[in-house]
Amino acid sequence: MLKVVLPDGSSKEFPGSVTPLEVAGSIGARLAKATLAADVDGKVVGVDTKLPESGEVKVRLLTRKDPEALGVMRHSAAHVMARAVMRLHQGVQLAFGPTVEGGFYYDFQLPKPLSEEDFPAIEAEMKKIVAKDEPFERMDVDRSEALAMCEGLAQHYKVEHISTGLAEHPSLSFYRQGEFLDLCRGPHVPSAGAIGAFKLLSLAGAYWKGDSNNAQLQRLYATAFFTQEELDEHLRKIEEAKRRDHRLLGKQLDLFTINPLVGSGLILWLPKGATIRGLLESFVREELIRRGYQTVYTPHIGKVDLYRTSGHFPYYADSMFPPFVTKEEEEYLLKPMNCPHHIMIYKSKPRSYRELPLRLAEFGTVHRYEKSGQLSGMTRVRGFTQDDAHIFCTDEQVPGEFEGCIEMTQFVLKSLGLDNYRVRLGFRDPKSDKYVGSEELWNRAQGALVEVCTRLGIEYTAEEGEAAFYGPKADFVVTDCIGREWQLGTVQLDYNLPSAERFDLEYVGADNKIHRPVMIHRAPLGSMERFIGVLIEHFAGAFPLWLAPEQARVVTVSEKSEAYGREVEEKLRSAGFRVSGDYRSEKLGAKIRDAQLELIPYMFVVGPRDAEQGTVSLRDRLDGDLGALSLADAMQRLSDEVAERKVRKTFSGSAGLEAKAEANEY
Amino acid sequence: MLKVVLPDGSSKEFPGSVTPLEVAGSIGARLAKATLAADVDGKVVGVDTKLPESGEVKVRLLTRKDPEALGVMRHSAAHVMARAVMRLHQGVQLAFGPTVEGGFYYDFQLPKPLSEEDFPAIEAEMKKIVAKDEPFERMDVDRSEALAMCEGLAQHYKVEHISTGLAEHPSLSFYRQGEFLDLCRGPHVPSAGAIGAFKLLSLAGAYWKGDSNNAQLQRLYATAFFTQEELDEHLRKIEEAKRRDHRLLGKQLDLFTINPLVGSGLILWLPKGATIRGLLESFVREELIRRGYQTVYTPHIGKVDLYRTSGHFPYYADSMFPPFVTKEEEEYLLKPMNCPHHIMIYKSKPRSYRELPLRLAEFGTVHRYEKSGQLSGMTRVRGFTQDDAHIFCTDEQVPGEFEGCIEMTQFVLKSLGLDNYRVRLGFRDPKSDKYVGSEELWNRAQGALVEVCTRLGIEYTAEEGEAAFYGPKADFVVTDCIGREWQLGTVQLDYNLPSAERFDLEYVGADNKIHRPVMIHRAPLGSMERFIGVLIEHFAGAFPLWLAPEQARVVTVSEKSEAYGREVEEKLRSAGFRVSGDYRSEKLGAKIRDAQLELIPYMFVVGPRDAEQGTVSLRDRLDGDLGALSLADAMQRLSDEVAERKVRKTFSGSAGLEAKAEANEY
Repeated sequence: MLKVVLPDGSSKEFPGSVTPLEVAGSIGARLAKATLAADVDGKVVGVDTKLPESGEVKVRLLTRKDPEALGVMRHSAAHVMARAVMRLHQGVQLAFGPTVEGGFYYDFQLPKPLSEEDFPAIEAEMKKIVAKDEPFERMDVDRSEALAMCEGLAQHYKVEHISTGLAEHPSLSFYRQGEFLDLCRGPHVPSAGAIGAFKLLSLAGAYWKGDSNNAQLQRLYATAFFTQEELDEHLRKIEEAKRRDHRLLGKQLDLFTINPLVGSGLILWLPKGATIRGLLESFVREELIRRGYQTVYTPHIGKVDLYRTSGHFPYYADSMFPPFVTKEEEEYLLKPMNCPHHIMIYKSKPRSYRELPLRLAEFGTVHRYEKSGQLSGMTRVRGFTQDDAHIFCTDEQVPGEFEGCIEMTQFVLKSLGLDNYRVRLGFRDPKSDKYVGSEELWNRAQGALVEVCTRLGIEYTAEEGEAAFYGPKADFVVTDCIGREWQLGTVQLDYNLPSAERFDLEYVGADNKIHRPVMIHRAPLGSMERFIGVLIEHFAGAFPLWLAPEQARVVTVSEKSEAYGREVEEKLRSAGFRVSGDYRSEKLGAKIRDAQLELIPYMFVVGPRDAEQGTVSLRDRLDGDLGALSLADAMQRLSDEVAERKVRKTFSGSAGLEAKAEANEY
Repeated sequence: MLKVVLPDGSSKEFPGSVTPLEVAGSIGARLAKATLAADVDGKVVGVDTKLPESGEVKVRLLTRKDPEALGVMRHSAAHVMARAVMRLHQGVQLAFGPTVEGGFYYDFQLPKPLSEEDFPAIEAEMKKIVAKDEPFERMDVDRSEALAMCEGLAQHYKVEHISTGLAEHPSLSFYRQGEFLDLCRGPHVPSAGAIGAFKLLSLAGAYWKGDSNNAQLQRLYATAFFTQEELDEHLRKIEEAKRRDHRLLGKQLDLFTINPLVGSGLILWLPKGATIRGLLESFVREELIRRGYQTVYTPHIGKVDLYRTSGHFPYYADSMFPPFVTKEEEEYLLKPMNCPHHIMIYKSKPRSYRELPLRLAEFGTVHRYEKSGQLSGMTRVRGFTQDDAHIFCTDEQVPGEFEGCIEMTQFVLKSLGLDNYRVRLGFRDPKSDKYVGSEELWNRAQGALVEVCTRLGIEYTAEEGEAAFYGPKADFVVTDCIGREWQLGTVQLDYNLPSAERFDLEYVGADNKIHRPVMIHRAPLGSMERFIGVLIEHFAGAFPLWLAPEQARVVTVSEKSEAYGREVEEKLRSAGFRVSGDYRSEKLGAKIRDAQLELIPYMFVVGPRDAEQGTVSLRDRLDGDLGALSLADAMQRLSDEVAERKVRKTFSGSAGLEAKAEANEY
């Protein structure tokens, strides 16, 4: 007898072997029809998978409402896409075809490469296949048979993969759908009719197994959803993301540039981008002072021995720029992180418990060596400036410091209109003994993290085994206005660097004895580059007034008002606004359009009557003409908006990413 | 007949050969007695030097009033010191004994090394020699005879020097004074009686010819002046300089630290030092914005090719950290200067004359590789942050931009109480053709520099041949409160980097044609490290209120006033002051003494009556108790002092360095 436990806690008993489909059928015909896959004891399987004949299993039947079903369906759609391509083209060699975030792809090699012009025909062929609703049939075979099958199909990438990558698998599975047969771990939906709305997106180059020494393939990206509405929403988001791409906006709005003669992944901040960064740094610095941090400045390089002591070298050498050796035979590194330097400041004199918590903050620039292929605008770079700080404190002070760090991150994110975020807590794996620091201290620290998140009303997930060996952490994962997630701020406890094996940090306690402090690493924004890259996309370049590089533009109705216009401009500048003036002899409409395109929040339109009456026609980039105001009132309106750091929502679109489907390739 | 032209323009004629002493005698016996040396056609010679027998020479008779005479006398004192050492010690080997800024030294090798305990005996012996007033007699001999003489004296360093260093001199001179005979180019004073007050200062190690592969010697430093008063004043200045040494004060006041594990010449700014730097940076940044500069941020590294284009590499490779090569075989350098990066920003898009002058500013950190032996605290470092900017402008805009740069430097220096400075203008050598840019442009630019200095009332010297090949410059040389000169700010025109051979910069002019801009490099402070190092010494650590890392301390008379004290502290902090509180149960006197030692400008002393009446006893670090004031009035006093950036002179001592004497060794 097999006992099947269902998610609601109820259970059913079956004599001998059944499949999830039969379990569904025993509940009802409609459910059986809607079931696309099943979660059996935590593993997603196909509906016709044989359950054990006895014992107990937990079964969750997956329908299109369950996020896992989307991944399964998309993988089935990948098979359908490959089948369509093979029907339409000769000599197609198949490589891998997994799901990825937001969709799926299949890598092909064709005698005549695919182009976007082939998309409509492929989509039409896929629609025919879906309409025919043939089942996906699983076949389990042993390795030698699998090899023979792929040789028979003349699929030499599959042959190679079975021979090398899957050499340790005694048994392998295939899925057949009509004439299409593919080596595949599965699972799949029961039949092609379950595949909803789909769309081919783009073609890219790829290498077999990602190695540039191997043959080059074509990667055909596509996506699928259960409904047309969901697909349309997704395509709209992709369009929106393109429109917001910080690499394009950065160029268009003169925010930053990257130059091959300076180096890839190294940001040159143009005046407008630098203005935003400077304002953000001032804002953070003010908050740091309010919260009892002290500022330091440390060098951009350090001796390799410093990083040997910290343990970063040679362990992380692969992700660092290489060391350089001077004529005096000293070995230096570009600093890959600021902590060792801040530790040397801690160690610059004997410390007493009276000085703790000691909070040392720095906008510290660090360098990491990413492969050039992985670089992207400001969000994947090789040199970046962290809004970094290290807190040296006693074990007892940890909860209070956690609270301070998390509260500050929360405050900073909210001030920037990033109010959709969650915290991912990384905890120790209770079954492992790889951790530094006693279990008691860990438990107390982890408990403090949960308590702080709860008290501050922050959504969090606690993930066991996700902590580094040196301490638990809290990562802020922010969802931007078009639903993409970004890991930004972080708070990280560290029992390792202060230890005797590393920097051997000490303080004299109230008991006059020597104690060891703990360290907290924290950065609310993460890095200025990445954070501002995300902000550019979040605001689509239209920064809130307090951050806008150009806050206002004086626009004259005609040349007659130039003198008054310049007077208004000068008054705005003296009052501390970032302002420009457009006194060209263009038409007013053209001048307004230019200011709109440059995303300038306010226009001060002035004509002859304004000069007489000391007024302006205030024009809001979003709401349009606000009518005539006295100059003083108009300035007050802007001052108030700056003072409250107002963020105006200028975007629509629902938030929330679809679940990230797992690749279900071998 | 010889015509001797005297400084007042008068001339005298002499039949046949005469000496300067005879010229002096022909004017008067007192002048002959006072004459210590002579300047003959710009060359300083001894009084018994034979003048030519005919023609015309310009002669300036040098007495103790002339700065050159001090150098001659000090060199004679060096001989007397060596003579005294040889009288008192056996087996003395003489090396070199030149004058240096502020005094002279002699390098010796002795079987039993000298110690400071030997100083009184040496000084006493020197006094005897001076009292005996024996003449310095010059002897000119040919090389082989000179070699024989030194071999006879068993002075093997002199022998080696004649054989190698002086191999090209056919004739050499010696000076004899009593039994003491020394190879010497001269000149000397007529006799030892002209030597005034002297003092042995210190002993140091030195290498023969400065090469650490050679034998080690002892360097005996001493100084001499014509009067005891001048010597006393000088010794007081040395003491004062020691007391102000920024390396000691930096440690004592927790301003900065240097750590061998991070690297020599790399400054770790501790919170208090970082506060000063941050305030100075904000001050400069405010002035930059007021003056129409735009801020940028650029990377700390750049591809070696960038510096090949700029011409800095490999030309200056010796003073740079070495290149490092990544796995992707890109060659990088720590940036040795910011200009190439700012140029890449200029080149990030096509430029129009409407955008000029474009003023790009950055607190840019650069690295230069100084030998470890040349490093010193913050004033000689390997990594430093320039308050840098580059102005891109048209030829016509150069005069106006010069004026802006010089005026800003003047303003910044004055604001910091550094009001004793001069400007050194570096001009082209009209006889050379090594310069980039037309003579007409140079003349116009040089004329503009002179005009600006004149109009702004700045003392300047224009030095032909001191310009770099790429453009004229203006260096600010600041004299600190104890008379030492420091080169700080600089303004430098550049016709080279914009040229076709370098970065080929362009803009579209009003005529719609392509033109080439010029560049100005400028940094009012020079480097934050060096400037603040100088400021620490200038203020002897007692910074003006607006820059003081800790501006005020609340001090309680007894524990009873702690609650009120904390209230006062919090009010000060809320008002933006950097404040601390001393609530220990120490005696008031002890707490005041501690605050004085920490150089805190103001103490807010509070007792029970203050709590009742809402008052404080304000105590000024310099003027002492200022009596009871309402807290509001006390705070207003501080606010006013900060707002006007008041600098209070806390030092005495006359300014002005003695003339730098030339080394008069071979």
